[in-house]
Amino acid sequence: MKIGFVGLGNMGSGMARNLIKAGHSLTVYNRTLQRAEELRPLGAKAVASPGEAALVADIVVTMLADDRAVEETVMGRGGISESLPEGATHIGMSTISVALARRLASIHGDKKQFYVSAPVFGRPDAAAAAKLFIVAAGPARQVHLGQPLLDAMGQKTFVVGEEASAANLIKLAGNFMISTVIESLAEACALVRKSGSDPNQLLEVLTGSLFTAPVYRNYGSMIAADNFEPVGFKLPLGLKDNRLVLAAAQEVAVPMPMASLIGDHFIAAMAQGLSEADWAAVARIAYRNAGL
Amino acid sequence: MKIGFVGLGNMGSGMARNLIKAGHSLTVYNRTLQRAEELRPLGAKAVASPGEAALVADIVVTMLADDRAVEETVMGRGGISESLPEGATHIGMSTISVALARRLASIHGDKKQFYVSAPVFGRPDAAAAAKLFIVAAGPARQVHLGQPLLDAMGQKTFVVGEEASAANLIKLAGNFMISTVIESLAEACALVRKSGSDPNQLLEVLTGSLFTAPVYRNYGSMIAADNFEPVGFKLPLGLKDNRLVLAAAQEVAVPMPMASLIGDHFIAAMAQGLSEADWAAVARIAYRNAGL
Amino acid sequence: MKIGFVGLGNMGSGMARNLIKAGHSLTVYNRTLQRAEELRPLGAKAVASPGEAALVADIVVTMLADDRAVEETVMGRGGISESLPEGATHIGMSTISVALARRLASIHGDKKQFYVSAPVFGRPDAAAAAKLFIVAAGPARQVHLGQPLLDAMGQKTFVVGEEASAANLIKLAGNFMISTVIESLAEACALVRKSGSDPNQLLEVLTGSLFTAPVYRNYGSMIAADNFEPVGFKLPLGLKDNRLVLAAAQEVAVPMPMASLIGDHFIAAMAQGLSEADWAAVARIAYRNAGL
Amino acid sequence: MKIGFVGLGNMGSGMARNLIKAGHSLTVYNRTLQRAEELRPLGAKAVASPGEAALVADIVVTMLADDRAVEETVMGRGGISESLPEGATHIGMSTISVALARRLASIHGDKKQFYVSAPVFGRPDAAAAAKLFIVAAGPARQVHLGQPLLDAMGQKTFVVGEEASAANLIKLAGNFMISTVIESLAEACALVRKSGSDPNQLLEVLTGSLFTAPVYRNYGSMIAADNFEPVGFKLPLGLKDNRLVLAAAQEVAVPMPMASLIGDHFIAAMAQGLSEADWAAVARIAYRNAGL
Repeated sequence: MKIGFVGLGNMGSGMARNLIKAGHSLTVYNRTLQRAEELRPLGAKAVASPGEAALVADIVVTMLADDRAVEETVMGRGGISESLPEGATHIGMSTISVALARRLASIHGDKKQFYVSAPVFGRPDAAAAAKLFIVAAGPARQVHLGQPLLDAMGQKTFVVGEEASAANLIKLAGNFMISTVIESLAEACALVRKSGSDPNQLLEVLTGSLFTAPVYRNYGSMIAADNFEPVGFKLPLGLKDNRLVLAAAQEVAVPMPMASLIGDHFIAAMAQGLSEADWAAVARIAYRNAGL
Repeated sequence: MKIGFVGLGNMGSGMARNLIKAGHSLTVYNRTLQRAEELRPLGAKAVASPGEAALVADIVVTMLADDRAVEETVMGRGGISESLPEGATHIGMSTISVALARRLASIHGDKKQFYVSAPVFGRPDAAAAAKLFIVAAGPARQVHLGQPLLDAMGQKTFVVGEEASAANLIKLAGNFMISTVIESLAEACALVRKSGSDPNQLLEVLTGSLFTAPVYRNYGSMIAADNFEPVGFKLPLGLKDNRLVLAAAQEVAVPMPMASLIGDHFIAAMAQGLSEADWAAVARIAYRNAGL
Repeated sequence: MKIGFVGLGNMGSGMARNLIKAGHSLTVYNRTLQRAEELRPLGAKAVASPGEAALVADIVVTMLADDRAVEETVMGRGGISESLPEGATHIGMSTISVALARRLASIHGDKKQFYVSAPVFGRPDAAAAAKLFIVAAGPARQVHLGQPLLDAMGQKTFVVGEEASAANLIKLAGNFMISTVIESLAEACALVRKSGSDPNQLLEVLTGSLFTAPVYRNYGSMIAADNFEPVGFKLPLGLKDNRLVLAAAQEVAVPMPMASLIGDHFIAAMAQGLSEADWAAVARIAYRNAGL
Repeated sequence: MKIGFVGLGNMGSGMARNLIKAGHSLTVYNRTLQRAEELRPLGAKAVASPGEAALVADIVVTMLADDRAVEETVMGRGGISESLPEGATHIGMSTISVALARRLASIHGDKKQFYVSAPVFGRPDAAAAAKLFIVAAGPARQVHLGQPLLDAMGQKTFVVGEEASAANLIKLAGNFMISTVIESLAEACALVRKSGSDPNQLLEVLTGSLFTAPVYRNYGSMIAADNFEPVGFKLPLGLKDNRLVLAAAQEVAVPMPMASLIGDHFIAAMAQGLSEADWAAVARIAYRNAGL
């Protein structure tokens, strides 16, 4: 099976390496060439446009920053949809809007190509370690066909139906859930800190009782320590995903007041100059407003 | 060691039974006598006032509904503080305000009695099964002394310092955290449901990846099914704890906007006639506002 | 008619002076004696307890800081309810809780005294200038009897029924309305300022078109200038009234999310050390969160 | 001076009539022809495309529903920018995004045309009665040139600078302010109603004291009566403007939590089937959540 891979950022480069490690032969494209060149010694072929990566591919995988990047890469000049062969499949792993996922399914369908959405949970270290959680949706046969690739990149795949956008919806809902964990920990730690107690005691109680989940341990230790290094997922991306879940919710007339509240805190964090920080640093807004 | 036990409600009766099972001899008091009588066949002595339960006790345990009940039971006529011997210990396991915990420590201290706060996480079934998580704080010697009792009632005790009220603060922060899980699941499930997907798919992804914690499984299944039976913790108690955490936060000038938001939803749920429902039924406000 | 007047703070001293100016003979009490002494040259008699001010009064007026002060003054030792003659009337003009207004009506009723609530809108300068707006409720005959006093202190009285607490409810709802004006102006001015425009242009448009009301002009000029001097109504009082309206709302199961939001901003402002500032300085929270 | 007028909806038709009444000769275009035909007997010339309305115009006025309509009308095929003569002016009176206003200034500038933003406050009856409030910004000479037109359509023009988009920003901020009045009245009336008092008493106090502004009288009477007929400004337009102000605020990193809260209520109102109702009917969400 011939694989094209487009988008070798913090997430994509680890994922592509894992595909190569698993024995797949990759044709790769990245906007800044260097990142693609780095994969050459491992056997990847680097090309000059997304379209070339798709040209003879059975499956082309995209892992890009946002809707705009995906639109350009797929629908732009020299883009994937122009050159992907009939019957071949595009597996979109970027975190994009539900609306764009729907359009991608339609655009590829018009060209007798297939589209599968397979967004992921996990930060760059999980991508490098092939420990991603993947949520996949699309035509059953193509999802099945792509499964070996997903297995090489993640620890587990959840298949959530045949409509590709359903995977993106669940991805966005999941990121919303993570953002609520961050904000709730921030407010609780602000309370505990300002009352003169140690937020690590709160964390120990939580993660030792009902909140025995990685998301509480990982974000909890950052927030309790008020230390958000290393940066795994930048704050503007968190704000972007917040806007995407709110857009998906508005489309079906679902108010999400908690998402709105967190969105306002993301914006406040941008205004405080935290645009290069990890999204968990939004906790600083709760801390600041508490005078900490 | 002689043990007094005051408050045999849904939580307290299971806890008292577990103390008896562990071999402790109990003198019990409950406002409605019948509940106390039920423990007689197991060997407990039922008395007619909280004070009598405390009279010859080394340790008296209280497990009551709210601040007012604790105030009456401890400071009222025939109350615990009048008759608890010098050097004996009151272990308060109710979910009460931080301010009252502070007052209890002071009142008992004035009488050379000791006060330990040991509020619990867990619903009536966990109380019956001795599976509670207990957060304890107070004078180290008295906490140590009470440990066998706590061990008989819970699966784990977290000791969080010598100031009793610190345990109540963490208990309230913990309940706040649970309430955020409920609201976030409600909003996410509203989004998924109204988009035509199955909220159980969302749950499966969450609890199979980053949210592998009982609190997500338990509340998630209720919220996804929009079925809040059986009632484990009534909505007005949830609202009460929300007000307690907000009061503790206001006292130290910490805004908790997420707690405010959830408090408003609890009040809306009361207005919809859900005062007999489990507190997780607050999810119905998110559903209603989404037109579900 | 003999008038007692209790509470000679920033508001009360102006009001008492206006009563004297209108020809009424006053017996006055204030916790710190000096303020009462200041009225002697004008003909007022200064006494040593609230009860003495009420002793031979036809009407005793109270203008105090909060519920606690009113409770002590009325129900405490040497308080008003002990000595106010049968058939005489207490006109309570403080901003207090709906619940306390209800209790006052009941307590005075038990002693065959009458109770009228008559809280006011207006800051100290309006009190001094007899320009207050007064909302009165209570037994019709007593409201009528007190009208000349109200006329001497205010520019207009709104009578809103025979149940005293109805006036307090409307007063609290009114203060909530003012707080929403402050917060909305703060957010709008933050937007305009950070977009590089002049907030005074926004104000000019608003107050020159649909928002031609003093509340927009007065608070608008403070907020646009980011200058909250002189202090007319301190921030902790604003927070107190916010808590009172939320308590009244919770009692009847009405969520007020806007009041909750503003309450959180008041608390954040307290945490920023603004407790001596005018309550309009809560606008600084919106400014801060916008990075201004 | 030759005038083109594009957009003869509920607002635009009244505005165009007032221009004709004032003696201006109009060439009009509307998507559905009939509305344009109706102006013929008054002397207007009806044409088949926006471009034709602009073809020989000194000034072309647009009054359209939203960004998309303005984009098509100006930048689409047969659009205004193609045919408006060099040196002529486009006065855009629609409520559009700040971003689009900026683009319009740039697009027209590229063609040596001028662009003035002049959005309005007022509902269809105010448009018909030439009682609009107009906020204008753009090159000083062109604003001056257009003033007679603005005078014919409104009762007052506020000129807020030379950057066109500044007028749109203030218009959006103003609509945000109105939306806060609606929501605050809704919450206050819910409280008063559910406490057993008459919301008209609250209104009387407000509008007779500090809130003596049309916006409180007009929306207050609708909300107190829970009657939102006739429909002046539909709820989806209110939601649209809410999204536009939030977008403008996000662009400059200003959180607007009150706008977010109201936006969620607009969405909830859409979910309750109120999409044909006046935007003031968003008050029903506060009423519903209070169990009214």
